[in-house]
Amino acid sequence: MSCSSAETQTFVDIPEALRRLVLFKGVSDETLARFSQEGRLFQYPKGKLLYLQDDEAKSFYLIVRGWVKLFRETIEGTEAVIDVLTNGHLLGKSAVFNNGLHGASAECVEEVQLISFPIRLLKQAIEEDPKLALNMLTSMSAHRRQQGREIEHLNIQNAPQRIGCFLLRLCPLNKETEITLHLPYDKTLIAARLGMKPETFSRALAKLKGETGIHIHGSTVKIHDMQALVSYTCSHCSSTFPCEDLKG
Amino acid sequence: MSCSSAETQTFVDIPEALRRLVLFKGVSDETLARFSQEGRLFQYPKGKLLYLQDDEAKSFYLIVRGWVKLFRETIEGTEAVIDVLTNGHLLGKSAVFNNGLHGASAECVEEVQLISFPIRLLKQAIEEDPKLALNMLTSMSAHRRQQGREIEHLNIQNAPQRIGCFLLRLCPLNKETEITLHLPYDKTLIAARLGMKPETFSRALAKLKGETGIHIHGSTVKIHDMQALVSYTCSHCSSTFPCEDLKG
Repeated sequence: MSCSSAETQTFVDIPEALRRLVLFKGVSDETLARFSQEGRLFQYPKGKLLYLQDDEAKSFYLIVRGWVKLFRETIEGTEAVIDVLTNGHLLGKSAVFNNGLHGASAECVEEVQLISFPIRLLKQAIEEDPKLALNMLTSMSAHRRQQGREIEHLNIQNAPQRIGCFLLRLCPLNKETEITLHLPYDKTLIAARLGMKPETFSRALAKLKGETGIHIHGSTVKIHDMQALVSYTCSHCSSTFPCEDLKG
Repeated sequence: MSCSSAETQTFVDIPEALRRLVLFKGVSDETLARFSQEGRLFQYPKGKLLYLQDDEAKSFYLIVRGWVKLFRETIEGTEAVIDVLTNGHLLGKSAVFNNGLHGASAECVEEVQLISFPIRLLKQAIEEDPKLALNMLTSMSAHRRQQGREIEHLNIQNAPQRIGCFLLRLCPLNKETEITLHLPYDKTLIAARLGMKPETFSRALAKLKGETGIHIHGSTVKIHDMQALVSYTCSHCSSTFPCEDLKG
């Protein structure tokens, strides 16, 4: 199994990286070997466009390091950020069920390392390995629930609560006092990811600080009273903290 | 195959109803027979709760007639309407991938006729009939794209545009002039479905009328200039009219 490529800098154990994914849990050795053989490791700089919405999908990707923004654009050029994903997440695999086309554009928001796989392998494996098809259903279903939660929040939570939820989902679950977090990417992108204009985000963040006593300095967030943040944020959510999907 | 039940009023050809669904396209005769045999037709009045969020799912349902509201509730009792579905749509099937629990509550918003199937049949069929598993992936993927569009709209469209999109998706595709529509359910529910408070909905509807020249009287909508409605609404959307999923 080779991981070499003109743009590769470090070694990644591709079979091991695949084994960690829900998608490959319990699949046949043959399936795993086929993906491992054809997987190629790449490193891309900030700003690199991996693919565009409606592009024909030739590959799908596993992020190894860094953050990738998924977005769609209107005719007038307004950008809607659909998701921002990091290591352990797969990109572009849904094209298999979208006439072979990517449903959104993908751009590296910092230096990103990823493994690229031919999408024909995925198409073939879904048809030939029932376990992989089942895994794909499980992971797609989890993603649907996440989208459902997001729609719910956009409908009934206010802007400070949506930021509160974003922060809570970054918190370690085993610690209840004095938590220090680092924002995973810049505030402008967090605002876009939460569907807010930068000025709305700033006002909402100020309100959240006042309501819950959190402190933010640059990209560092200090949460002294976790319960205050949970109680302010999750009172307007149909799930209870911690969300099921975070419990692993 | 019997469709009788204490709450049944009319006859429905269950195998025929199943054959029309994406989920059952090309599945084995054995699979189809099993579902047909165990399907039971019910009729429920407006307000009937079919199941509650986090209930253990024993059945899933195919709507034959009428509208069903899917919603989630916060601890404080605020309701988020996730979807409003009608004939040809399946309810509750995702519980198979959610530890057997329903992810939302379902309530009849008018008199509803539906066919109920034991969820264990679906679980079994997904594992035993690869074609059904593939169909489930296709339909789940389409639903994910729909949710993605909804998140995009909540992020970048204004309220009048979101109402415009709701109306456009009800329009027949082969007619461009003088379209008359009937709103499928009452305006309060449309507002909730679009994530708006009733007063926001009223103001937004007034703005949409002014911008596009549509007329609304009771539940009847008259669209004289389809192009004006498309141009106002879809300029803030990453898809072009008509949406791919409407083309069938």
